[in-house]
Amino acid sequence: MTTSYPLITLTSDFGHDEPFVGMMKGVILSRYPAARIVDLTHEIPLFAPAVAGFWVHRSLGYFPTGTVHVAIVDPGVGTARRIIGVAVQGQVVLAPDNGLITPLLEAEEATHIREVSQETLDAVGLPPSATFHGRDLFAPLAAALVSGTLVFEQLGPSIDDVRRLDIVTPKVSDLEICGRVLVTDRFGNLITNLPGEYLHRWPECEISLGERRHIAIGRTYSDAPAGGLIALVNAHNLIEIAANRSRAADLLTPQISARVVIRPTNSD
Amino acid sequence: MTTSYPLITLTSDFGHDEPFVGMMKGVILSRYPAARIVDLTHEIPLFAPAVAGFWVHRSLGYFPTGTVHVAIVDPGVGTARRIIGVAVQGQVVLAPDNGLITPLLEAEEATHIREVSQETLDAVGLPPSATFHGRDLFAPLAAALVSGTLVFEQLGPSIDDVRRLDIVTPKVSDLEICGRVLVTDRFGNLITNLPGEYLHRWPECEISLGERRHIAIGRTYSDAPAGGLIALVNAHNLIEIAANRSRAADLLTPQISARVVIRPTNSD
Amino acid sequence: MTTSYPLITLTSDFGHDEPFVGMMKGVILSRYPAARIVDLTHEIPLFAPAVAGFWVHRSLGYFPTGTVHVAIVDPGVGTARRIIGVAVQGQVVLAPDNGLITPLLEAEEATHIREVSQETLDAVGLPPSATFHGRDLFAPLAAALVSGTLVFEQLGPSIDDVRRLDIVTPKVSDLEICGRVLVTDRFGNLITNLPGEYLHRWPECEISLGERRHIAIGRTYSDAPAGGLIALVNAHNLIEIAANRSRAADLLTPQISARVVIRPTNSD
Repeated sequence: MTTSYPLITLTSDFGHDEPFVGMMKGVILSRYPAARIVDLTHEIPLFAPAVAGFWVHRSLGYFPTGTVHVAIVDPGVGTARRIIGVAVQGQVVLAPDNGLITPLLEAEEATHIREVSQETLDAVGLPPSATFHGRDLFAPLAAALVSGTLVFEQLGPSIDDVRRLDIVTPKVSDLEICGRVLVTDRFGNLITNLPGEYLHRWPECEISLGERRHIAIGRTYSDAPAGGLIALVNAHNLIEIAANRSRAADLLTPQISARVVIRPTNSD
Repeated sequence: MTTSYPLITLTSDFGHDEPFVGMMKGVILSRYPAARIVDLTHEIPLFAPAVAGFWVHRSLGYFPTGTVHVAIVDPGVGTARRIIGVAVQGQVVLAPDNGLITPLLEAEEATHIREVSQETLDAVGLPPSATFHGRDLFAPLAAALVSGTLVFEQLGPSIDDVRRLDIVTPKVSDLEICGRVLVTDRFGNLITNLPGEYLHRWPECEISLGERRHIAIGRTYSDAPAGGLIALVNAHNLIEIAANRSRAADLLTPQISARVVIRPTNSD
Repeated sequence: MTTSYPLITLTSDFGHDEPFVGMMKGVILSRYPAARIVDLTHEIPLFAPAVAGFWVHRSLGYFPTGTVHVAIVDPGVGTARRIIGVAVQGQVVLAPDNGLITPLLEAEEATHIREVSQETLDAVGLPPSATFHGRDLFAPLAAALVSGTLVFEQLGPSIDDVRRLDIVTPKVSDLEICGRVLVTDRFGNLITNLPGEYLHRWPECEISLGERRHIAIGRTYSDAPAGGLIALVNAHNLIEIAANRSRAADLLTPQISARVVIRPTNSD
């Protein structure tokens, strides 16, 4: 699990108003000047660890083997909650054990999870403050992993009791497929938990979101008229409800957790 | 057009809420770990490609020869719109062919434009999704160009029919100069399309914006009293209407596209 | 003061909507391609240089010797205000002489300050615009310092008359300690100017903010019930008023400059 390619990504709810992320980078570069650091996003909604896990999961495929991903949405910082490391796709995700990694667990078979032991934290970390483990513990751990001074197996003991969030999974029957809106993005697109292949399960189907039925199905945003709704397979291989040159989120309510149903045409 | 200095800049309307930009960086660094990446801005207003082109154009002079600039505001993503490469000032701009590069064309004589061919996209890109060519096509193209595995001339055929937006150019006569407000920046400064030299075309002149006349002319923001309006030549060599320690945009309406007129004093 | 480790941090009120920070990075990398650049924050409130100084001061400890910090909140740009360099903790801070560095001066004994001379600016900088010295002067200065082509002592003459802002310092007596709220952060936490050690000055004490008395004292956010207020020592070693899984800033008014008082229990 050590890497010859020292890449670290950072995901958090720290925002951009204060230098919290910059301090983490200072700690990483102080310890391992060769590290490369990429921000995924620091605008995860406060107290929404599952959204962080969702985006880290969807990003893994675009990073090289050996990348270390630090993902922090951690309202329990300073309490006895564990810090965990997850080996997945030849990469490592470091996160608090608060359910953040649930989306990784749903999707990946070969995942291996270790608790970061107190011995490792003592050996690698800064003396931790009660409120900023990103800087004091996660950043030093990531630097140690990408520098090769610490290998994944040394993080601590393997565990199989990580905390999982109740994440709604699609319900699939011969009559219909039911999913939910997971995330609304900057463009007002509504990203669902339905894998893209479900859009083509039946030769002809219709898709509805909440009360809104007969949403057009296409391949690109431009397959709808300007302002029109369109369901398509998005770049994360999930079904998405969008609007051409407009914001689906402004045309549809409710959104987050709204029920999305696909049925074969003429089934009702 | 190959470069010994692997610098890439990114400009988009992707914002900071989701890891879209981070995914692009993952693709670039997976393919060419030595690449350096600089964000210009990812807060271009949605569906405003000309603003992206404006800022890329104004940034070129501060980057070294061989830099590759990726600029994406692309509501037509996934349709048949072309991807183009523009050679300008010893650098390359990659963009969708939707008018984004118009500001570059207005200003530069020696520009050379190539369409990125399907063969190049197939050879270099990821299998493209329908909605995120920044990650699947633009990022791999930029990595290939800065790494030298692809040279500008290999992008595809030269073209001279790129799409241009109708961008209003200043109207200059012996009696007056008429321009428009192009962009409002974070500080509430109103940036016009008038080159700085026009502020000194007549020994004495007056400047007006919409109904507001006799705006003071100076060199720095502090040449106006606190809260007072001032017209000056800004850091992008354009005439700008600002307010000292305040926001001109809050003092003046309308703003975007508002008419800015310079006349010699006593000419009316 | 030269460094073998070319790290530059940037702090400003430039925001993320325009490529102002990107242009600075282009200038730095054009002059010294090996430079590493870390953003602290570009969302300092407009015209609040003391907030920039506060965060740079709190960040120093996490960066290696030789780091050059550029901090720009500069409404007087283009006027005769000086540019200064401060040597502190083996690092250099470059800033306009408008009081920004006051928090550094309050806290550090061994600080050494030099005015950047006109000769140095002429030798190192770009021909300066009137409105963007970050790009034209600060970025070239930082590149020259980290590259070793310019050493701190060559910036210009030592000075001891830098501009200081009136920053309220805590008032400490045998009866009480009085401080102020300095900054509200993204999480709605109220950061005070009271060093953490004051929270334990008396065996038992109570803390109040404005009219709100008997605020609970703890070590982590979770030491309060959900939504409850808590006073703790934060990650910057300052006393902070927070709310568990909520925003203290939404529960308390006024905030910035609000009076925070610690008294031994039963003292009134």
